[in-house]
Amino acid sequence: MSESVKKRSSKAGLPPGTIVHIGEQRTAEVKITVVDYDETHFQEKELRVVEECFPYKETPTVTWINVEGIHDIEVLEKIGSYFGLHPLVMEDISNTDQRPKIEDYGNYIYVVLKMLYYNRKNSHDRVVPEQISLILGKNFVLSFQEGIKGDVFDSVRERIRNDKGRIRKMGPDYLAYTLIDAVVDSYFLILERLGERIEELEEILVTNPATESLRDIHILKRDMIVLRRSIWPLREVVGSLERGESALIKEVTTIYLRDVYDHAIQVIDSIETYRDTLSGMLDIYLSSTSNRLNEVVKVLTIISTIFIPLTFIVGVYGMNFRYMPELSHPLGYPMVWIFMIGILAGMILYFKKKKWI
Amino acid sequence: MSESVKKRSSKAGLPPGTIVHIGEQRTAEVKITVVDYDETHFQEKELRVVEECFPYKETPTVTWINVEGIHDIEVLEKIGSYFGLHPLVMEDISNTDQRPKIEDYGNYIYVVLKMLYYNRKNSHDRVVPEQISLILGKNFVLSFQEGIKGDVFDSVRERIRNDKGRIRKMGPDYLAYTLIDAVVDSYFLILERLGERIEELEEILVTNPATESLRDIHILKRDMIVLRRSIWPLREVVGSLERGESALIKEVTTIYLRDVYDHAIQVIDSIETYRDTLSGMLDIYLSSTSNRLNEVVKVLTIISTIFIPLTFIVGVYGMNFRYMPELSHPLGYPMVWIFMIGILAGMILYFKKKKWI
Amino acid sequence: MSESVKKRSSKAGLPPGTIVHIGEQRTAEVKITVVDYDETHFQEKELRVVEECFPYKETPTVTWINVEGIHDIEVLEKIGSYFGLHPLVMEDISNTDQRPKIEDYGNYIYVVLKMLYYNRKNSHDRVVPEQISLILGKNFVLSFQEGIKGDVFDSVRERIRNDKGRIRKMGPDYLAYTLIDAVVDSYFLILERLGERIEELEEILVTNPATESLRDIHILKRDMIVLRRSIWPLREVVGSLERGESALIKEVTTIYLRDVYDHAIQVIDSIETYRDTLSGMLDIYLSSTSNRLNEVVKVLTIISTIFIPLTFIVGVYGMNFRYMPELSHPLGYPMVWIFMIGILAGMILYFKKKKWI
Amino acid sequence: MSESVKKRSSKAGLPPGTIVHIGEQRTAEVKITVVDYDETHFQEKELRVVEECFPYKETPTVTWINVEGIHDIEVLEKIGSYFGLHPLVMEDISNTDQRPKIEDYGNYIYVVLKMLYYNRKNSHDRVVPEQISLILGKNFVLSFQEGIKGDVFDSVRERIRNDKGRIRKMGPDYLAYTLIDAVVDSYFLILERLGERIEELEEILVTNPATESLRDIHILKRDMIVLRRSIWPLREVVGSLERGESALIKEVTTIYLRDVYDHAIQVIDSIETYRDTLSGMLDIYLSSTSNRLNEVVKVLTIISTIFIPLTFIVGVYGMNFRYMPELSHPLGYPMVWIFMIGILAGMILYFKKKKWI
Amino acid sequence: MSESVKKRSSKAGLPPGTIVHIGEQRTAEVKITVVDYDETHFQEKELRVVEECFPYKETPTVTWINVEGIHDIEVLEKIGSYFGLHPLVMEDISNTDQRPKIEDYGNYIYVVLKMLYYNRKNSHDRVVPEQISLILGKNFVLSFQEGIKGDVFDSVRERIRNDKGRIRKMGPDYLAYTLIDAVVDSYFLILERLGERIEELEEILVTNPATESLRDIHILKRDMIVLRRSIWPLREVVGSLERGESALIKEVTTIYLRDVYDHAIQVIDSIETYRDTLSGMLDIYLSSTSNRLNEVVKVLTIISTIFIPLTFIVGVYGMNFRYMPELSHPLGYPMVWIFMIGILAGMILYFKKKKWI
Repeated sequence: MSESVKKRSSKAGLPPGTIVHIGEQRTAEVKITVVDYDETHFQEKELRVVEECFPYKETPTVTWINVEGIHDIEVLEKIGSYFGLHPLVMEDISNTDQRPKIEDYGNYIYVVLKMLYYNRKNSHDRVVPEQISLILGKNFVLSFQEGIKGDVFDSVRERIRNDKGRIRKMGPDYLAYTLIDAVVDSYFLILERLGERIEELEEILVTNPATESLRDIHILKRDMIVLRRSIWPLREVVGSLERGESALIKEVTTIYLRDVYDHAIQVIDSIETYRDTLSGMLDIYLSSTSNRLNEVVKVLTIISTIFIPLTFIVGVYGMNFRYMPELSHPLGYPMVWIFMIGILAGMILYFKKKKWI
Repeated sequence: MSESVKKRSSKAGLPPGTIVHIGEQRTAEVKITVVDYDETHFQEKELRVVEECFPYKETPTVTWINVEGIHDIEVLEKIGSYFGLHPLVMEDISNTDQRPKIEDYGNYIYVVLKMLYYNRKNSHDRVVPEQISLILGKNFVLSFQEGIKGDVFDSVRERIRNDKGRIRKMGPDYLAYTLIDAVVDSYFLILERLGERIEELEEILVTNPATESLRDIHILKRDMIVLRRSIWPLREVVGSLERGESALIKEVTTIYLRDVYDHAIQVIDSIETYRDTLSGMLDIYLSSTSNRLNEVVKVLTIISTIFIPLTFIVGVYGMNFRYMPELSHPLGYPMVWIFMIGILAGMILYFKKKKWI
Repeated sequence: MSESVKKRSSKAGLPPGTIVHIGEQRTAEVKITVVDYDETHFQEKELRVVEECFPYKETPTVTWINVEGIHDIEVLEKIGSYFGLHPLVMEDISNTDQRPKIEDYGNYIYVVLKMLYYNRKNSHDRVVPEQISLILGKNFVLSFQEGIKGDVFDSVRERIRNDKGRIRKMGPDYLAYTLIDAVVDSYFLILERLGERIEELEEILVTNPATESLRDIHILKRDMIVLRRSIWPLREVVGSLERGESALIKEVTTIYLRDVYDHAIQVIDSIETYRDTLSGMLDIYLSSTSNRLNEVVKVLTIISTIFIPLTFIVGVYGMNFRYMPELSHPLGYPMVWIFMIGILAGMILYFKKKKWI
Repeated sequence: MSESVKKRSSKAGLPPGTIVHIGEQRTAEVKITVVDYDETHFQEKELRVVEECFPYKETPTVTWINVEGIHDIEVLEKIGSYFGLHPLVMEDISNTDQRPKIEDYGNYIYVVLKMLYYNRKNSHDRVVPEQISLILGKNFVLSFQEGIKGDVFDSVRERIRNDKGRIRKMGPDYLAYTLIDAVVDSYFLILERLGERIEELEEILVTNPATESLRDIHILKRDMIVLRRSIWPLREVVGSLERGESALIKEVTTIYLRDVYDHAIQVIDSIETYRDTLSGMLDIYLSSTSNRLNEVVKVLTIISTIFIPLTFIVGVYGMNFRYMPELSHPLGYPMVWIFMIGILAGMILYFKKKKWI
Repeated sequence: MSESVKKRSSKAGLPPGTIVHIGEQRTAEVKITVVDYDETHFQEKELRVVEECFPYKETPTVTWINVEGIHDIEVLEKIGSYFGLHPLVMEDISNTDQRPKIEDYGNYIYVVLKMLYYNRKNSHDRVVPEQISLILGKNFVLSFQEGIKGDVFDSVRERIRNDKGRIRKMGPDYLAYTLIDAVVDSYFLILERLGERIEELEEILVTNPATESLRDIHILKRDMIVLRRSIWPLREVVGSLERGESALIKEVTTIYLRDVYDHAIQVIDSIETYRDTLSGMLDIYLSSTSNRLNEVVKVLTIISTIFIPLTFIVGVYGMNFRYMPELSHPLGYPMVWIFMIGILAGMILYFKKKKWI
């Protein structure tokens, strides 16, 4: 979190609509791909210059322009001005610390989503959010991201290419739905991995709780916070799309959006369950710590309670008084042993009764 | 949870409406039974092929088709296309990780419920949810499930067969209500059993708290989470049916649905009470742990406080100084004993005053 | 709680509207009393057979029929069918595990309330809820209960009999209000007693906290849960009556219902305050436990820290080395005592500085 | 709390509208003062008999009648019947356990407020609420209270008398606003004092936490509960007045009421902040308790760990075996000392490394 | 908090609309600057007397009057009466303990914001809020503050001066937006610094937790409370502006306000995340305390358990009985050593098995 806050603060004082890239730059170059299709026609190509995509805006076919690498301000500005996007939208696309949100500008809808993936940080796998921006226009969809490893959009591209399902028969709103659905589906992969880590940790807690367990619980808890922040507002985004207030969303697509909405609720449900589980694990950890203390103190008490009185007794007969009748008694030594063994037996019975041993 | 998440994630990337069975396969074969009735007429039969049920769709009588075994994609597809169900509905029927929900598709209503039963897992009885899907059409009800042990729908079948109550005089909406009511009624059985386990555990906590008690509390707590997730959304489902927004639900049935709604609230109330009780039990457990520590440390302190000073005294007279007048005094030894017994008595009085013994 | 759940579960599978008594049977026989009155006229009698009350239905005077003993299904069925009550209402009257609720059936309103009283259980006084059902019709009020010890309705009967207040001038809605008011007023008696027990317990916690205190706190906490469950929904019941949506409630009565509503809020407020107080008491209990541990360990540490070093010193001079110059020194023994007393004084100063003694 | 509950319960069974004084009687006699004014005219007098105030009802000037001593039922009844107040209103005025509330009876508005002041109870200063009732009519304001020490209404009286501010130019609604404002302003005095006590306690917690600190935290916490209960509903009361739904509140006054509303929110905000602070202080207290335990145990461990092994060594050479070569060695004694000092040094280094000393 | 409460309480009893400065006076003199501009024209000057700003009110150009130093009542009164501001607004401007709020007076809108900065207090850096009041009129914006170090409005002034962005082309509503935006942007700087301190503290907690860590956590927690109180209501303020209910806010500006709204939500999100993190850190701190106790007790137990039995053994052979056969046995001494080493080895194995060493 603090990373985006840090970068964000560097923007303070600039006029609104100033496009400044906030986030990590991952790809050296900007990669722009265009997919253009209708029921009968399909074309896919990678552009060398951004201007190549402009003619697609006016065609009646569905056009999907995917921009990887949002750090290149110049490219963003060209696209923004050609497609008539509001400067604030362009600003938000390049600031990767937006919450998921939806904004309806009349002739286009702007949607911000969060893609989640795992990243190694300080020798721990942490969940890291990645911003994806979608622009749904009359017959085009623009998508912006900073190059994700293992692109979730590949399966969508594949489906268009091979005319699988109904995607080629539907409009750009269905394409936007498909992209959102791909992102939401990918959350289940993250949840699966988190679920596995929680189960592993639970196993460890029961068999051999250690100080690192506490740290691991807290790392998982913070991952949960990242997830919640990324996914909770999504519910509202999809719900708002589903209600179909925009003319850009056709009636037939809203049923599909309701399906995505259900999935989002399911993901949120799972996160809440995991959070509850982690809280329970914290209880178990703390209670096992105090059980270990109990056990240690019990050992100390048993040993002390047995041997301190015995040590006193042998101390008594180590005294150097001239007149101690027991000392010269021929059975004195064996009697003391018998006495001490009696005390020992009594102690053991006492501890047995108390269920300490 | 993580099981369904795991399976769910394997679906990522497929086009929507692709029917993939997610869940456990329990029955080898699909079993389809048809019950067809009106006030005067009754017919019940088990089908060998799915096509046999198609003619019933058009009859004016109420038809109830129950499908056990939702892993057979082909059967589901045939039914779905014949009864004109949306592909997303068919997808949801076979994915058993849906939340309880209701979807109104105009000429039919799709309802997802959760049946709950007990299952042995890692030597513990755990609450496991089982998905039941209902389709309420103009004159038919379809129900889908993956074969539950001890079918809750048997009593409904019995009632139709023997013309008990008003079920034969009413339409398919009343049948749908009866099926939902049967599911909700079965929750009381689960609650009864959970209540018994909680009472047992409470008994143990008071008499003999052990480390497993904590584990048992947490298993019950997680069962509560499963219950809540299964039943909480149900309230909204039944509430939505009761409000009677669909033409498929007749006025007269809404009173009965209000009754189910009340039962659902009652179940939720009981769950909340159990959750509060479990939290209280956790407090008692933790506090009994710290009380045991107190007791152990008290024993240690009493023994040490009595014998450490006495050991010091006998140590004094074990010193080998040449000139120690007490040693050669004829009453030295008895005097030391009297002195030590005096200290002992003082200590005991002190502990009595402190209410330690 | 689990008792009602247990009985409830035995009903699973029966058709709706089947009247089954769920709850404890307390009275051997059913007792039906009729009070019939208007401004000038008053009649009160106890019926031998249920049919005797039927003629009162049609008279223009206000009729109040009170049924004690809801375990007699036959009687309930006769009343239900004569007064035209819905089968689900009759079912709810005999199931004593309903939540407080209100249902408007057009020509009558059905209200469920919870009477609370104290009952001895496992040598503890526990709060037990008792269900009271009211039916408010055009010119009659029916009330159903399973015979409460110390009937709260006696004062109402008295008021009608003696024409106290305005009750004889008002209609059946005012009578229903009076009955609800009597129930709500009785809650203050329960709260008073709970308040006293909380104060007693608080006193004990400060002077002499024991393990039973924790148990008592938890018993009170569970009583609070029972109270909340019984009273919380009441607020909505009375609020719904007050809003005067039904023609059966006259304008003039709503002001009185608002008064009951205020009382219900006051009761809920007190319950919340008690809950907060009990949470605070739990904190005090746990902290006093850990303070006692601190004290015990402090005693152990003081004794050990003083005598263990001294025991070491006397041990040194108990060694049997042939060449130990101190042993043969004439002042050796007194010097050791002086040295040890010096150490003792130093220790005491140290503990004083640490504020341990 | 329990005090008002106790008295309240004594009212159970009486018909509604029966005026019974519930609360503490503080003044021996009832004191009624009338202030009558408009822009040009001002009259103030103390009445001997209640009937003297009746003529003021009809005058066009603004009349403020303040009644101190609400335990005199007869006086209340006379005022109630002359000013046409509903019996339930009169009942609520004399029951001092009402929550702050507002009731609009058409030709007058009834407002209940809570005045807060400090009272010594069990050697602790506790916040005690005092009920103030206001009746706002067409050209009069009635205020009822049980005689507060240091009347907050004095400043209002002063302002009318000296024609300060706009009060003489405005109507009775502005007067009612001024009285409410005086009450809300007085909350800041209570908050100030609570704030000081919290700061003092915080100081003590850091320098020298004691068992009483815990008790003090809990007393403050319960004061906070009293404050919340008194002030939280006020927000709604003022909000409802501000919305100006009644014809008795003029447009121009609503701006002033919005100001009071803001103040009420501010007070609630401060209470919430104090509550958070107190929770934090509880954490610090509990953690300091456990830190002290840590310190005590550390001292015990250091002393024991150093001297128990040394005591063992000297014990070895206290043994009386005939053949122990070390004993007769001329350097035996000094060698043992050197060995023991070596062990001591090692221990100290170990503890230093562990940062225990 | 308590500081503003304290000052606030000194105002009790004064008539509403009395302007009293509540807050810290920081600047000796009042500094009034005027910026007057439209698309072609720009004028900036510092005023010597407040009356100089009056002519700007009527010009068609946008006028921004910034007043630093709100302790000068006279100046405020002059501005208030000339610009026709309500006395309550003037009162609120000089009371610096307002919550962020918005009030629409028809021909002008009054907005209260909180500027946050760091201040050294008791050797800790604490977040301190500073009140900023904005008045948006038909063609002017007034801003009031008590002189902030490092003015956040400088960048806005710069932008107007140099005609950067669209500010010169837009009206006073856009200017008001820009000022609010500048304040919200500055929150990110505070968040950045808090984030850094939290990370530092987290580092310390893991490596070397100390008692001060707890204190630092609580100081940060209280800073969070200050932030929440300052920023949470802001959301509603901006949301209310954005909804564009006032004619003073033009359609085109609402899109920019939505952007500020998003930023406010982002800040609130970050605060919630930080709060969660701090709670987690408290858990880690408390658990590390109890882990340290465990470790200390373990050392004590190991040393005691090894040496107490050995000391008993050497005590046995220190007894002075006349008939002890072992003492005169030539191998007695070495046998005892072998026996004791055996015990030692057994103990070490036992502790190894228990994973204590």
